[in-house]
Amino acid sequence: MKEVKIGICGLGTVGGGTVTVLQRNAELIAGRAGCRLIIAQAASRRRPEHIELGTIPFSDDIFQVVQNPEIDIVVELIGGCETALELVLAAIENGKHVVTANKALIAVHGNEIFEAAARHGVVVAFESSVAGGIPVLKAIREGLAANRINWLAGIINGTGNYILSEMRSGRAFDEVLREAQALGYAEADPTFDVEGIDAAHKLTILASSAFGVPLQFEKAYTEGIANITPYDISHAESLGYRIKHLGIARRQADGIELRVHPTLVPVRHLIANVDGVLNAVLVDGDAVGQTMYYGPGAGAEATASAVIADLVDVARSVAAGSSQRVPYLGFEPEALEELAVLPMEEVHSAFYLRIHALDRPGVLAKIASILSEHGINIESIMQKETEVQDNTIPVIILTHTVKERQINRAIADLEALPDIPQRVVRIRAEHFPD
Amino acid sequence: MKEVKIGICGLGTVGGGTVTVLQRNAELIAGRAGCRLIIAQAASRRRPEHIELGTIPFSDDIFQVVQNPEIDIVVELIGGCETALELVLAAIENGKHVVTANKALIAVHGNEIFEAAARHGVVVAFESSVAGGIPVLKAIREGLAANRINWLAGIINGTGNYILSEMRSGRAFDEVLREAQALGYAEADPTFDVEGIDAAHKLTILASSAFGVPLQFEKAYTEGIANITPYDISHAESLGYRIKHLGIARRQADGIELRVHPTLVPVRHLIANVDGVLNAVLVDGDAVGQTMYYGPGAGAEATASAVIADLVDVARSVAAGSSQRVPYLGFEPEALEELAVLPMEEVHSAFYLRIHALDRPGVLAKIASILSEHGINIESIMQKETEVQDNTIPVIILTHTVKERQINRAIADLEALPDIPQRVVRIRAEHFPD
Repeated sequence: MKEVKIGICGLGTVGGGTVTVLQRNAELIAGRAGCRLIIAQAASRRRPEHIELGTIPFSDDIFQVVQNPEIDIVVELIGGCETALELVLAAIENGKHVVTANKALIAVHGNEIFEAAARHGVVVAFESSVAGGIPVLKAIREGLAANRINWLAGIINGTGNYILSEMRSGRAFDEVLREAQALGYAEADPTFDVEGIDAAHKLTILASSAFGVPLQFEKAYTEGIANITPYDISHAESLGYRIKHLGIARRQADGIELRVHPTLVPVRHLIANVDGVLNAVLVDGDAVGQTMYYGPGAGAEATASAVIADLVDVARSVAAGSSQRVPYLGFEPEALEELAVLPMEEVHSAFYLRIHALDRPGVLAKIASILSEHGINIESIMQKETEVQDNTIPVIILTHTVKERQINRAIADLEALPDIPQRVVRIRAEHFPD
Repeated sequence: MKEVKIGICGLGTVGGGTVTVLQRNAELIAGRAGCRLIIAQAASRRRPEHIELGTIPFSDDIFQVVQNPEIDIVVELIGGCETALELVLAAIENGKHVVTANKALIAVHGNEIFEAAARHGVVVAFESSVAGGIPVLKAIREGLAANRINWLAGIINGTGNYILSEMRSGRAFDEVLREAQALGYAEADPTFDVEGIDAAHKLTILASSAFGVPLQFEKAYTEGIANITPYDISHAESLGYRIKHLGIARRQADGIELRVHPTLVPVRHLIANVDGVLNAVLVDGDAVGQTMYYGPGAGAEATASAVIADLVDVARSVAAGSSQRVPYLGFEPEALEELAVLPMEEVHSAFYLRIHALDRPGVLAKIASILSEHGINIESIMQKETEVQDNTIPVIILTHTVKERQINRAIADLEALPDIPQRVVRIRAEHFPD
């Protein structure tokens, strides 16, 4: 049986998982791939104590791996951007295929990396960079190849989803975040997760693979979950909605929407029922309709599962001496469209509004009339006399779908009313109709 | 740009959808595939009136397509087994690749077809044969290639799932079936759907692709949903379970479980919340854990989506002149394991039991003692005095996981009691723990 030699750079959580699974399931993987995947070298700054390397040659210099003439495929699992970019470009220069789990690297430097890889005729595979063990990029790039993808929406950050799931029992954001940190679900510095940056990296990759557009991470809109309150969560539930932190990409005629923010979704929709640290990506294609891909978005062996799936794909190609390739973003480079990311003002969505108004006659009429002036239709409205506090009463409104520009102008007019002394809280809502 | 020529046999629902999507998304598909998919011939017994064939050469003889020297890939969409087998084998003999949506053909004759295809060095692709538009075979064979698959469970018949979903509102099986027929969700002869044969075809294909074992449809156990009552559905709900018609395959040390039957699943599990005609397949792998794939399991364009995904895969290989292949069942033929399907007595599951017992003292103790004698532990028990009828009272029991043999013996002993005048109703239950 043919052997394909791989070199692993980075022996942290995912690197360790990859070594473990490649060794444990070596026979099974060879039976699927039709060739043996041999770890010819593993490298990290320090020799890890918790990973059983056995006879695998170790180096404390990751750049030795990309120079090792024996190696066919370099696996980049060091994380971060600067050194990873240098490493990946060096591997490509040396004619090596690359498998990476690095979402930031692909989202930010992917266009440059793919161009270099195309010049050198090598594959760069990155299934594990999005949604951990869920083979969602393969589903989009290959399984849905017949479809014009209309939109996709994903729970693609497990930490954020865990926090929002736990907050449904009435607990505050800060309290649940501290618990998530204690459980190891959230980092000591949780910014990347709770501010949506991590999700925006993944969304950027998903959107480009779905629509066939260049990666444009810098234009993604991100809004975190730190301002979500148990109050809004429970009022959304009474309206039949659940608040999820979603990455949403939608194709419009003149551009694409690319945005991460808290979102109300109908409770009866399957994606509303994805709880805890799990991930799910909902994809709408013109032929297939809606499909969803669900599973663990992180973890040593779950992510290793996706790394190794990429390795098997590339190894099949290496062993067959074949030039048969799925293009980097699922479309041949010349078929990519230069569709730009639309400014948020052009984005369509429905809105949940929480308006604290003075409790006096005529206020509701004024609110309704301002919304109507801006062409905004109301789907539901909720106001309870029992919630009056300091002579103000919260008015909860769910609108139909509008352009963000309309809601901005309406909110400006609302906040200018003397009857509305506080800022209006807004959370976007999506219905995902079939 | 290179052209790959395809011939379509069968212009019914899926054939029509395939022609429509291939034409509508021709540019997009070429941009993904890196070659043009040209329909060089389409054939069916009668020229269809509702499909726009345009300039596509038509024949009323499907065998002309497999003899057409121009054609690289034959798409078999005629359904049924006999003629389809003849057609597919003839295509293979003529060196043509085959794409088919025919689950019965693959489940029953797949081993023979794959052997012929291997001899002639051609691909036989059948993503659309399971779960319609959901790319679940690709997920299992490629996306989860790193994993030893432990088990999988799927809602893989939309008709059955629609009926069970509707029965939750208290309506009887017959009534909902008639409605499903009127809506076009169920055939005039619903046997294949409600008896689980259609699901068993799909499960057979899923299991072989997951475990790397030969197709063994004839050994699958199938049990339909015609005996499920609203009473059991509502009592299962009170226990925290929902009844779904599942196809379940599990790997044991000495064989595989392969079974289709009504199953209680925990309501909080995502798969319990897949309603209506939709499909979902839950897969448990040793590295990734649980992943789930959800979407439409039928329909013209949804199924066409999967047919065309296969066409794109094969066309890439044809255009590259490559011998790079994903093996038919995801494993190289020599890596297939001769694991047999286990007899039902060897299968493990939990059980929901409905026991109609005479309403007199000591009966419950007798029931509990018989279960205990057979090593069966009780998870929950439910008995309501308000449900006494004709001096009998229903006792609802949920057991822990046991071997089917144990429950058979216990039920025989229970039914031998004079206190239990009716047959014991049993429905299997699965917990799908993480």
